[in-house]
Amino acid sequence: MNPHMRPGVWGVLATPFIGSTHDVDDNGLAQLVEHADAAGVTGLTVLGVFGEAARLSWAERRQVLETVLDTTELPLVVGCTSLATAPVVDEAAMAVELVGDRLAGVMVQANSADRAVLDTHLRAVHEATGADVVVQDYPVVSGVAVSAAVLGDVVSASPHVTAVKAESPPTPVAVAELTARCDVPVFGGLGGINLLDELAVGAAGAMTGFSFPEALVACVRAWDPAEPEQARAELLDHLPLITFEQQAGIALAIRKECLRRRGLIAESAVRPPARSLPASLAPVLAAHLERLGVR
Amino acid sequence: MNPHMRPGVWGVLATPFIGSTHDVDDNGLAQLVEHADAAGVTGLTVLGVFGEAARLSWAERRQVLETVLDTTELPLVVGCTSLATAPVVDEAAMAVELVGDRLAGVMVQANSADRAVLDTHLRAVHEATGADVVVQDYPVVSGVAVSAAVLGDVVSASPHVTAVKAESPPTPVAVAELTARCDVPVFGGLGGINLLDELAVGAAGAMTGFSFPEALVACVRAWDPAEPEQARAELLDHLPLITFEQQAGIALAIRKECLRRRGLIAESAVRPPARSLPASLAPVLAAHLERLGVR
Amino acid sequence: MNPHMRPGVWGVLATPFIGSTHDVDDNGLAQLVEHADAAGVTGLTVLGVFGEAARLSWAERRQVLETVLDTTELPLVVGCTSLATAPVVDEAAMAVELVGDRLAGVMVQANSADRAVLDTHLRAVHEATGADVVVQDYPVVSGVAVSAAVLGDVVSASPHVTAVKAESPPTPVAVAELTARCDVPVFGGLGGINLLDELAVGAAGAMTGFSFPEALVACVRAWDPAEPEQARAELLDHLPLITFEQQAGIALAIRKECLRRRGLIAESAVRPPARSLPASLAPVLAAHLERLGVR
Amino acid sequence: MNPHMRPGVWGVLATPFIGSTHDVDDNGLAQLVEHADAAGVTGLTVLGVFGEAARLSWAERRQVLETVLDTTELPLVVGCTSLATAPVVDEAAMAVELVGDRLAGVMVQANSADRAVLDTHLRAVHEATGADVVVQDYPVVSGVAVSAAVLGDVVSASPHVTAVKAESPPTPVAVAELTARCDVPVFGGLGGINLLDELAVGAAGAMTGFSFPEALVACVRAWDPAEPEQARAELLDHLPLITFEQQAGIALAIRKECLRRRGLIAESAVRPPARSLPASLAPVLAAHLERLGVR
Repeated sequence: MNPHMRPGVWGVLATPFIGSTHDVDDNGLAQLVEHADAAGVTGLTVLGVFGEAARLSWAERRQVLETVLDTTELPLVVGCTSLATAPVVDEAAMAVELVGDRLAGVMVQANSADRAVLDTHLRAVHEATGADVVVQDYPVVSGVAVSAAVLGDVVSASPHVTAVKAESPPTPVAVAELTARCDVPVFGGLGGINLLDELAVGAAGAMTGFSFPEALVACVRAWDPAEPEQARAELLDHLPLITFEQQAGIALAIRKECLRRRGLIAESAVRPPARSLPASLAPVLAAHLERLGVR
Repeated sequence: MNPHMRPGVWGVLATPFIGSTHDVDDNGLAQLVEHADAAGVTGLTVLGVFGEAARLSWAERRQVLETVLDTTELPLVVGCTSLATAPVVDEAAMAVELVGDRLAGVMVQANSADRAVLDTHLRAVHEATGADVVVQDYPVVSGVAVSAAVLGDVVSASPHVTAVKAESPPTPVAVAELTARCDVPVFGGLGGINLLDELAVGAAGAMTGFSFPEALVACVRAWDPAEPEQARAELLDHLPLITFEQQAGIALAIRKECLRRRGLIAESAVRPPARSLPASLAPVLAAHLERLGVR
Repeated sequence: MNPHMRPGVWGVLATPFIGSTHDVDDNGLAQLVEHADAAGVTGLTVLGVFGEAARLSWAERRQVLETVLDTTELPLVVGCTSLATAPVVDEAAMAVELVGDRLAGVMVQANSADRAVLDTHLRAVHEATGADVVVQDYPVVSGVAVSAAVLGDVVSASPHVTAVKAESPPTPVAVAELTARCDVPVFGGLGGINLLDELAVGAAGAMTGFSFPEALVACVRAWDPAEPEQARAELLDHLPLITFEQQAGIALAIRKECLRRRGLIAESAVRPPARSLPASLAPVLAAHLERLGVR
Repeated sequence: MNPHMRPGVWGVLATPFIGSTHDVDDNGLAQLVEHADAAGVTGLTVLGVFGEAARLSWAERRQVLETVLDTTELPLVVGCTSLATAPVVDEAAMAVELVGDRLAGVMVQANSADRAVLDTHLRAVHEATGADVVVQDYPVVSGVAVSAAVLGDVVSASPHVTAVKAESPPTPVAVAELTARCDVPVFGGLGGINLLDELAVGAAGAMTGFSFPEALVACVRAWDPAEPEQARAELLDHLPLITFEQQAGIALAIRKECLRRRGLIAESAVRPPARSLPASLAPVLAAHLERLGVR
């Protein structure tokens, strides 16, 4: 297994934009990195779905990676957007080139419900680039519904797969089956909405971008299967915001506005066709943050 | 507006089954009714989606209604399963016949994104039966995606529509738009997962079947827009169970097992093809309940 | 196997409506029955999806069945709309009561991808009613995606299943797998759009409601695996209308208007929320029919 | 409007692969180009969905474009795979660089149901690259359902949009509405399965990759609204193969095998996770081709 791939919280970085042309905001990005680092994350996941990688140019993807690399010493997981081998290899090769030995893995979408197709895909990406692979199972984005049984078997037979990000609801069921079938760490995602349940069935932590990573870190650090009460207490006060943030279709818009109100980024724009924050939710969001000490 | 249709919590009743043939369990049903009544609900919603109405025979639907009517004096909303006018009229007519003047409304699915089609449908059900109508907007079940703007306009022009159950995520956005467009109470659903946010944008309460209705009642009673803190405090301790219960595809199985462990029903079976409780979640569920004092 | 369940074309009957209230039109229905009978169909499928059974009241369903029974001596398949056992038993019981020994089977939707759930469901319907079962695999309506392998195995182990209606595209692939796994007749549907290909892989015919059943009958009667040319020739002239009729979301509206222009029914209305014929297609439809001698 | 954007048939090129590593087969590609050119197509569409652009590396995309440019003088439409502006600009810029003044347009997916978002996206791609834009409305691939009314209005207000490829079924309804709203040519796609109907409501031709482009060319050339019979006759003999080829999920696999059996490409492999040709269909495919003179 990749030496960087340790349990805990892997922060999924948003990509902040600035100005009417929605340029990548290097300063904001660096502040997000520093905040996550200070919050105690194990590593960072860059160019993921909520990093809006699918809405960045090729040059902007390099820019994002370089800014992150310049800002932190944390290990990185680098997301790949495509579903087919050849373009994923393009994406993974850039990650290998830029991140070098700080690369914990390239994150590749589970692209097929077929065991052989999925196995061949993951192996091909590894063989072409040398990168270890984190498999992301995220059907709402990939459109692919692979069973946890098939995914677990493929992973357990693939020494180059170093972790799984399980985002196919009901995720606690998937995490339970994956951890029973393979030895690599399995992380929950989806903003942490079922983090306590995922930990209870064996998750190694969370790989997600909730706007208060420190709460996820506190929860995961406190996790003790024999004494779940402490982890629960660490998360509880943030749970209303987690359920607010994790709304279908607008989760990223909410998250970025939370980050902006926390002073971490200058603007909260998402790139179209992603949906902006509905105006009706602005006061609700403000009240959530005020309750957590952000004014 | 129907005199029974008051703000608060409307408990959506599960239908308990017993034995290898999954017969309707009248005793369990009566206990659920009594528990909800004692918990302080405003009324009950019978034969809803989570009452498994779509998996009951016609005789069983009558049996459920009669058992509920025999057990409580609370007003009732009676769910209709179909999407077209003629069979909904069949369902609504039985509700009118059995429930009489305790009927707060028949709950009818929003069946079209087209303003005129939806309006005609709701009016026809009312005119054929005399029943007031609660509109349920629940695309994951109906397959229909109607905008809140269209729905709100139809409702505001329909004196026979007496409430809306808003279950098209992101629900707080929908509730905000609906309450801006029409005067009838708008209820959140979905197990209460965004109840605080729905209340913040004007929801009249919740119409849902969370296994601890007393927690929803306490939250809604405590709601004060100027002082949201108290309602938040009332709900917070149950929020981890709400997020656990509200898992895609298995929410009803979890809920029924919670009700069973609370001693309210004898067995937790759901009728196929609904999905049973995955074994991996049983200890997680037990821990949630233990934390809430159920052993 | 049910003695009535013979290869050939089973005509799926539309339910014609008349007047502003969309009442069931018994005269039109009888004419449709007589036309199909004269066209040489093996039997009729009543109360199917395209018979708009889901938009009929319970009394109207009886009315439709009785009208058909009064009009023809053909054997009948009677469609069931629900996906769960108890309400399907209600529907099947009415079919048994009314149709008696002319019942070739009740048509039940494949309601689960799970072998045991599906098997139990089909058996329970048979045991409760004595009816043989035709399984319909129609995911666009049922929302259920069962593999042909599982479906074939269930059918082959179920002596009470007497036929399959295969409507999960790509249907020729499904028909090939089903006919390899089970001995009962497998029928294509979907308006006959892939009828030639379905016959080529072993289909026993078609069970569908194309507006010119005589063309389907001629094709199926002419089918000879060693000499496919003749069947092809019989269908070819109607294939442009088949592809026109089989348009997503408006197939039934097109079909009913074809039947009206043929003089078989008085009005072509579909019940909402089904979509009406777009005005832009009226002249295209007229040209298709004119080409086939209908003016 | 772009001077190259003329009515007729635009052939969507498949990308042939060769060997166990599925390398791009330049020879096969050149033969496909030459065949389409000889068949009389108006232009070629390269790197479209059925050209498997989403499964090519960046270098392979260049290779495909260069091979096509070296083989023909026909004008080209170049497909873009992404849904967001920045990566589409990357793709469009390569098209402009390589294709130069033979570029009839870059083909951009309709990426939003929102008028302003769609309008801004199309304009931004044009302004960043200078390329004219062909809008493709293909919800099964894009996941975006935009109404023909919104799309038509956006197109009619966008001088940089030079054509529409309408692939949102029912396509004849969409083509009718689009041609009523805007002046640019509107092309049907989807293998030509509704070509006659699309022509009847004003389509300028077809932009698709049916394995016998000569049949589409003959049909479109023969089209005369006053005398539709001739165009119908030109297409009719190929219509059974069109309906066979246009099967959900396996259309490209069928098409490539047809091209292979016609001797145009050496191998018919599709890149995973695309689905291969089911073995059960091989003899059916052979019979279709034999009927058309291919042995």
